[in-house]
Amino acid sequence: MKIEIIAIGDELTSGRIINTTSSFAARRLFEAGFDIYAIHTIGDTPRLIGEAVRRALTHVDAVIVTGGLGATDDDLTTEAISNALGRPTAVNEEMLAAIRHHLRERSEQGAAGLPIRQTGADHLEKLARLPRGAEALNPWGKMSGYRLVHNGKPIYFLPGIPSQMRRLLIDYVLPGLATWSDGQTSMIRQRLFRIFGLPEIEVNRRIAALALPKTARLGYYPVFPDVHLNLVVRSMDGVEGLPATKQAGDAAFTGAVAMIEETLGEAIYGHNQETLSAVVGRRLLGKKLTLATAESCTGGMIGEWLTSTPGSSAWYLGGVISYANQVKEGALAVSKEMLASHGAVSAEVAEAMAAGVRRLCRADLAISVTGIAGPDGGSDEKPVGTVYIGLADEQGTHAERFLFDGGRRQIREISAQTALNIVRKRLAAP
Amino acid sequence: MKIEIIAIGDELTSGRIINTTSSFAARRLFEAGFDIYAIHTIGDTPRLIGEAVRRALTHVDAVIVTGGLGATDDDLTTEAISNALGRPTAVNEEMLAAIRHHLRERSEQGAAGLPIRQTGADHLEKLARLPRGAEALNPWGKMSGYRLVHNGKPIYFLPGIPSQMRRLLIDYVLPGLATWSDGQTSMIRQRLFRIFGLPEIEVNRRIAALALPKTARLGYYPVFPDVHLNLVVRSMDGVEGLPATKQAGDAAFTGAVAMIEETLGEAIYGHNQETLSAVVGRRLLGKKLTLATAESCTGGMIGEWLTSTPGSSAWYLGGVISYANQVKEGALAVSKEMLASHGAVSAEVAEAMAAGVRRLCRADLAISVTGIAGPDGGSDEKPVGTVYIGLADEQGTHAERFLFDGGRRQIREISAQTALNIVRKRLAAP
Repeated sequence: MKIEIIAIGDELTSGRIINTTSSFAARRLFEAGFDIYAIHTIGDTPRLIGEAVRRALTHVDAVIVTGGLGATDDDLTTEAISNALGRPTAVNEEMLAAIRHHLRERSEQGAAGLPIRQTGADHLEKLARLPRGAEALNPWGKMSGYRLVHNGKPIYFLPGIPSQMRRLLIDYVLPGLATWSDGQTSMIRQRLFRIFGLPEIEVNRRIAALALPKTARLGYYPVFPDVHLNLVVRSMDGVEGLPATKQAGDAAFTGAVAMIEETLGEAIYGHNQETLSAVVGRRLLGKKLTLATAESCTGGMIGEWLTSTPGSSAWYLGGVISYANQVKEGALAVSKEMLASHGAVSAEVAEAMAAGVRRLCRADLAISVTGIAGPDGGSDEKPVGTVYIGLADEQGTHAERFLFDGGRRQIREISAQTALNIVRKRLAAP
Repeated sequence: MKIEIIAIGDELTSGRIINTTSSFAARRLFEAGFDIYAIHTIGDTPRLIGEAVRRALTHVDAVIVTGGLGATDDDLTTEAISNALGRPTAVNEEMLAAIRHHLRERSEQGAAGLPIRQTGADHLEKLARLPRGAEALNPWGKMSGYRLVHNGKPIYFLPGIPSQMRRLLIDYVLPGLATWSDGQTSMIRQRLFRIFGLPEIEVNRRIAALALPKTARLGYYPVFPDVHLNLVVRSMDGVEGLPATKQAGDAAFTGAVAMIEETLGEAIYGHNQETLSAVVGRRLLGKKLTLATAESCTGGMIGEWLTSTPGSSAWYLGGVISYANQVKEGALAVSKEMLASHGAVSAEVAEAMAAGVRRLCRADLAISVTGIAGPDGGSDEKPVGTVYIGLADEQGTHAERFLFDGGRRQIREISAQTALNIVRKRLAAP
């Protein structure tokens, strides 16, 4: 079953907003076994919206349209579709009642401390107007979205606001399409290998040397600072070049996974959506150890990554952002003499920071980062990109020097990822 | 001049990678006065690539194709274009020599500490093969990209790797298209208003009540946790509904900006690409004050945001990520009794955290955040989303309670943004 995603919004075609909602929809649909024919992004221009939906209906089996369903004046999707498909709009009374109810409720609660005022009746009605034949996905919910079947093909209209689109996609679109497709989808097996510390071309060289099953499809993606390798094996009866049975597809997939794991080894830190922070957290939890961080040039990035994982309080204690030297001295007990003689960016200071934060937080393990992220602050001896990473545990402390390429953001991100990878490797040791 | 952007890659249509490069290209092109007709995203399938480029040539004046130019086996753009446009490929000897040179150089330096090995000659040649008639954008550079003029229209082919695409777009595509268009582009004036603390519908209500010039085009964008309002005024001689002269366009734009600033007031924290962190930094620098942070549920996010601004060391000292209570006690001198009687998520602890980190870092101002980001840890009295934000300065300390909506990520982000906004407002006071 082929699907086209049409994303609508001047904010997208003018590049002010990055189109994350289409990526989310594509990923979920792909994982559910659908083919994404295209993601087509256009502005809030009624003629283009109408043309895009009509054209998509000629070459795909289902269409998902996101954006332009809101109450503000620049939301034009419903009107455009009504004209393009010759379906006049009418107010859905159930939706209108629900919108009135939710607005009343919200203004009483004052959600998130932000005052919500009643708005004009025209705005409310606009949210509840649907093209003829459309069914509201969730008329009593707080999000508007609807499905229209045109020329026998389903078209889903979803809001462009990411959280609302995600919820409706998962709750209504995926189950709806699964029933619609009636068992016609192919069987897809997919695994993403997350790799750190090997360049893309080296990953490619090693993988190309393997005798992988011919039906394995591979993609290489440099996702700074990682490289991601994606493996897909489909099976479908009656399609040339694909295994016909579930068993043959499973065998091809399992074989390919084993060969990839073997050749890339420890450079693979995780799979699919697994972040390096989550892997580190799992290993800490398994060994009942706690971690603390002392960050200079990364400014809190490692802490933020670690605490984005729910449940991280079981293994991450916190730490110090010792951006200024007076904080390295006052909070981490790095001596003024050491800072003067070796400089804040040095192996000695990295070690002292790690030892200091380990003591301060009473942690089992501590990691520290101090470096020059640029654009200023570099010298001949210590150019921009020079970073020291320190590790302290019950056996002592040590630090490593790195020289990273890139701009300020890249240097900070690869520093944070390298620090976490050092912790990961330390926790792999017996 | 109408432009279509075609982004190629299975990683995009399957949603594994978010298409940031197209957004970047669209923004730069839009700001330079071009119309973005569509952003079309398709997989690494030669037939779709060929069709997309041929179709784009029928309705736009220039095409930008990104992705699929790399050396790995899944990069198929050049081959697809060669077939679709009937232009056989040939090796560009200058590019081949350059690629060999850079690889040799890189393997000697061992960039970023990652070992780069020589790869097969076929990989090298693939990077240097171009369709007939193509001109390499930068044959001696480290990035491959080329331009092809077909049926009198320019098509630019750029790598999908964001940093490379950005560089080539700025250095070659924008200047090339500016010359090509020969003064046909309209004049665009654009301003983005960044708003925090007012819901989108309230922003819309206030703006709709203004008598803005008819040629002002407005867009409302909820970019969590902000609302962005975009104003565009174009002028172009001979186009109905647009001011004909530069002067008339400028006057309409200036008038609209003044009315928007007036009605939204302090809720506008910045313009265009300006982040709240950068605004806070500028105000601190202007008043020669320093800031420190104590973060619990945000886990370092505020520090990371502040230090993402180059030069932040002039006004941000650092702080403590006091995720565990033992760190609140050990590093910030929050008393065990206070934690036991009021709980870690309380006004008392928020105040003690702010005062503690201000003292520890010897800062002029300190901000603290302690809350329940979820999904676990909520209670009837303090549900998930309960957050206390403390502020300490030479006049004393105080804390505010908030109840935020959303999931863990949303609660953390709105907490961090609210904390920075409190600092911004404090710095606006005389």
